Amino acid sequence: MFQERLRAAQNGVQAALDAALAARAEVPIIHAMRYALTGGKRLRAFLVLESAALHGIAADGAMPAAAGVEALHAYSLVHDDLPAMDDDDLRRGQPTVHVAWDEATAILAGDALQTLAFELCCDPMLGPAERRVDLVRALALASGAEGMVLGQALDMAAETAPRALTLEEVIALQAGKTGALIGFAATSGAILAGADTAPLAAYARALGLAFQIADDILDVEGDPAKAGKKLGKDAGANKATFVSLLGLSGAKDRARSLVEEAEAALAPYGSAADTLREAARFVVERDA
Amino acid sequence: MFQERLRAAQNGVQAALDAALAARAEVPIIHAMRYALTGGKRLRAFLVLESAALHGIAADGAMPAAAGVEALHAYSLVHDDLPAMDDDDLRRGQPTVHVAWDEATAILAGDALQTLAFELCCDPMLGPAERRVDLVRALALASGAEGMVLGQALDMAAETAPRALTLEEVIALQAGKTGALIGFAATSGAILAGADTAPLAAYARALGLAFQIADDILDVEGDPAKAGKKLGKDAGANKATFVSLLGLSGAKDRARSLVEEAEAALAPYGSAADTLREAARFVVERDA
Repeated sequence: MFQERLRAAQNGVQAALDAALAARAEVPIIHAMRYALTGGKRLRAFLVLESAALHGIAADGAMPAAAGVEALHAYSLVHDDLPAMDDDDLRRGQPTVHVAWDEATAILAGDALQTLAFELCCDPMLGPAERRVDLVRALALASGAEGMVLGQALDMAAETAPRALTLEEVIALQAGKTGALIGFAATSGAILAGADTAPLAAYARALGLAFQIADDILDVEGDPAKAGKKLGKDAGANKATFVSLLGLSGAKDRARSLVEEAEAALAPYGSAADTLREAARFVVERDA
Repeated sequence: MFQERLRAAQNGVQAALDAALAARAEVPIIHAMRYALTGGKRLRAFLVLESAALHGIAADGAMPAAAGVEALHAYSLVHDDLPAMDDDDLRRGQPTVHVAWDEATAILAGDALQTLAFELCCDPMLGPAERRVDLVRALALASGAEGMVLGQALDMAAETAPRALTLEEVIALQAGKTGALIGFAATSGAILAGADTAPLAAYARALGLAFQIADDILDVEGDPAKAGKKLGKDAGANKATFVSLLGLSGAKDRARSLVEEAEAALAPYGSAADTLREAARFVVERDA
């Protein structure tokens, strides 16, 4: 069930992103944006669509938000890969945007992808204006200087810090860097329905942390060919990760207990949330 | 009248921006954002407030939009100044963000300033949700890959092009790079009131072009101490500018006729738009 629905989300969101860029001028910046929007697991889009489904909103009525969160995520990857940031050459098995084009194009394409994310969240398909404003505001809070960007800034600061981060600091960093946007995605259906976001926010907190722990485990144990990016970088950089802080088996234990926590948070939705429960298990069991 | 109202806009928008950042965590990224938001002419904020006043909206009911457009503008300056872009060390008489901090901080601060702009445009002070969604969408269209970012991308492409741009190409470039955001600012009051944006859009088109021509003239004739940035760069770089394409006196003539065009576009508003008329004259007569 989960795999089918993930695949449907992947296809649906790719079509929506293609459509959003189809009408634009054929300039290099648009090519770079399209390139950056290709591939990926589309976990965030999937979460938007599942969250919407839980609240009786069909895929069409949530797809622009799913496309928006993927555009926002893509912008963050393009900028994080820049030489002045993580300096990565490979992403999703392909040269990063600043390698395929140049730094200026990567900065601008990232900028325009962020803009596109907010534009998509205004789409009338998403329902009443009140809900769309709530959605735009939630996306801004999740991705800005108190959310995703703060997490990335803490990550940069950690690289030149005199000591490695503590577990609490790594958790705070990841809550911003990856957690905030996952939280937005998972609660977006509730936002669009004007419903309580608390259960899905709790689910997303556990899921986001489990996701990051799994990433750290894959960085040590994963197959670079499947990951489509360089692995072992964090360990080489002597960076505090969940594996360095908890040990490999401690990290795996923590990931498993977070999956249970995520599943438990979905109790109010009963079996309607089974796909989201499966997603939580997938996140820690994936091999890429 | 214009000078007083511009000063009021400057003070009001600075207070709004300070308030927006006051509650945030005191991390370097917030310091860099605050630094990038300091100073400047605040022409865009002024246009938002005047456009609102023309439609019976008091300053309080438009201030978050004025702050938003200045946050968006500040993000564009921080990113444009980066080494991979225009590589400028000085802005508003101060070291640019990447000089005062580092490139990573400048990229992230710019990113978070863009996010802040969209957050501010969701502020309930701006009125009904329908209008706020329209405002967010207009800001996204003005600043994205078919507006400001496109203009900047065309500008970057021109630097390595085998020939200098034609007048039509420079006009198209500037319509994106500076014109789109000025257009957003000038029409925002009409958007918030649900009124016709066409007269103010026409005013902004002429004003934005006049503004850019005046900039090119200042680049040749201006006083670097007053400008707070390096001048003569474009001429030195053999870049097509309105001065290189029209000659100094031709550029001045064009700027003057654009001011007349801008003033004429305001006819539907009668004397209520006198401050905007004064603003158009100021834009070409300023010495910095």
